[in-house]
Amino acid sequence: MNQEELEKCIDAAQNSQQYAHCPYSHFRIGAALLTTCGKIFTGVNVENSSYGLTICAERTAYTKAVSEGYKSFKGIVVASDLKDRFITPCGACRQFGVEFGDFEVVCVKPDRTTFKSSTHKLLPGLFSQEDLIAKAQQDEKEGKTPQN
Amino acid sequence: MNQEELEKCIDAAQNSQQYAHCPYSHFRIGAALLTTCGKIFTGVNVENSSYGLTICAERTAYTKAVSEGYKSFKGIVVASDLKDRFITPCGACRQFGVEFGDFEVVCVKPDRTTFKSSTHKLLPGLFSQEDLIAKAQQDEKEGKTPQN
Amino acid sequence: MNQEELEKCIDAAQNSQQYAHCPYSHFRIGAALLTTCGKIFTGVNVENSSYGLTICAERTAYTKAVSEGYKSFKGIVVASDLKDRFITPCGACRQFGVEFGDFEVVCVKPDRTTFKSSTHKLLPGLFSQEDLIAKAQQDEKEGKTPQN
Amino acid sequence: MNQEELEKCIDAAQNSQQYAHCPYSHFRIGAALLTTCGKIFTGVNVENSSYGLTICAERTAYTKAVSEGYKSFKGIVVASDLKDRFITPCGACRQFGVEFGDFEVVCVKPDRTTFKSSTHKLLPGLFSQEDLIAKAQQDEKEGKTPQN
Ligand SMILES: [Zn+2]
Ligand SMILES: [Zn+2]
Ligand SMILES: [Zn+2]
Ligand SMILES: [Zn+2]
Repeated sequence: MNQEELEKCIDAAQNSQQYAHCPYSHFRIGAALLTTCGKIFTGVNVENSSYGLTICAERTAYTKAVSEGYKSFKGIVVASDLKDRFITPCGACRQFGVEFGDFEVVCVKPDRTTFKSSTHKLLPGLFSQEDLIAKAQQDEKEGKTPQN
Repeated sequence: MNQEELEKCIDAAQNSQQYAHCPYSHFRIGAALLTTCGKIFTGVNVENSSYGLTICAERTAYTKAVSEGYKSFKGIVVASDLKDRFITPCGACRQFGVEFGDFEVVCVKPDRTTFKSSTHKLLPGLFSQEDLIAKAQQDEKEGKTPQN
Repeated sequence: MNQEELEKCIDAAQNSQQYAHCPYSHFRIGAALLTTCGKIFTGVNVENSSYGLTICAERTAYTKAVSEGYKSFKGIVVASDLKDRFITPCGACRQFGVEFGDFEVVCVKPDRTTFKSSTHKLLPGLFSQEDLIAKAQQDEKEGKTPQN
Repeated sequence: MNQEELEKCIDAAQNSQQYAHCPYSHFRIGAALLTTCGKIFTGVNVENSSYGLTICAERTAYTKAVSEGYKSFKGIVVASDLKDRFITPCGACRQFGVEFGDFEVVCVKPDRTTFKSSTHKLLPGLFSQEDLIAKAQQDEKEGKTPQN
């Protein structure tokens, strides 16, 4: 992301925080996902009374983009209200992100200061689709059918 | 949903199926969520190499709507490619839906035949935010602080 | 479950509540899963700072049993501290349960009064493995390979 | 983990793989979690027809230990059938692990060769309970009640 894109994404992420559905954590997170073609998809955390069904802001942004036909990303910005700490993506969102490759992840405080990383840096030695492909290839080489 | 709304939602749900990210299940699902004010949000299933991170079409549609400020829904249409069976929402999506109240859930086959139900009918004796509120009220009555 | 089995499961479910890891919801749930061969596996809710990673008591009990080689169940008992309401399984746990067939689900209050249902009753018109099999069969009949 | 503990955990993890419920991925994973007091809890992946409800081997082991009253861990071993690659925990399992602190994570191939890391190393700049506590403290300092 260049500076102009970053600023736009920070605006979008921070503006979307108002829509967070967080009656349980009261923790409003907003995300803005930039596609390689320059489109921005925002996301918010959507919580559920069964906590385990909660979907974070980043995953909302990813699914939103995919559902409109976009799967190639330049970066994602994650905004929280926390003034003294950078809120980074949780492990679930990190895993969800690497499904779409390596791209920038920027965490931003209310004062617009940023912490910059990337999907791959945030998940060292990552588990990915390549592992499933390697498994399928090994099974094929060994003459195993999926039923085995 | 009246007939016109239903037809529009079926179109939207079936059209969105093409964007499903389903390299693991090869099962394309599309959803179309109608807000009470007449806006339609589509969704698709977005799978992950770590299967447990998969998000279904319905949940994509819900988070998308919420992230744009919409939380009041008339109904959701779920479309699959299966010709001989209606594909109903999984339990996770049923739970995600009841967070936003009771509204129509319509499952549709490729030939546009439908199975109609509702979020509350699909989750009899549902667990919901009311349970958490009841728990908090009981704790308060008994003088328990959250820390106990 | 016969009465003796039910009583044992209620004891086990209520006794396990003390181990719940619930620093976010403060809602202690315990479960006791009875295998067809008479073994009991307990479970508790295990929450996470990323709420979406929370695993409920029922799913803890299911994975525990499976990890020891048990997949055939007579019933599951779910215990909460709520005195005036029965806490039923969330949609995610209902879906997780039907993977292993139709069996009793019993919700129990602190005073041991019960609400009895079953995995299939709690998920009407359920989505299941049969849907995935039907999809694979349709694809095969139509000469589609998974890659299409 | 010392060498003896590691060997025992590798045995336990690899032995538990047989119990994996993986009719969708056909990818058998086993885990063995060592508590600080020397107890081993095994885990396997338990998949669901609704892929998103799948629970990995590591999370099965964690919930199992917690449900029996154990929350303090020395390390976890993760075993797969893949001969040429180390299978590391997915992001969801990494997040689930850091809930219980920093401890060893060892990935093991069928030939018992290992890749050693730790929960904190696998989730750099991790999101954790400390973030939620910081948020609550900030809200309190600013006179915000959770309802705001
Ligand atoms: Zn997250
Ligand atoms: Zn679903
Ligand atoms: Zn549940
Ligand atoms: Zn995992």
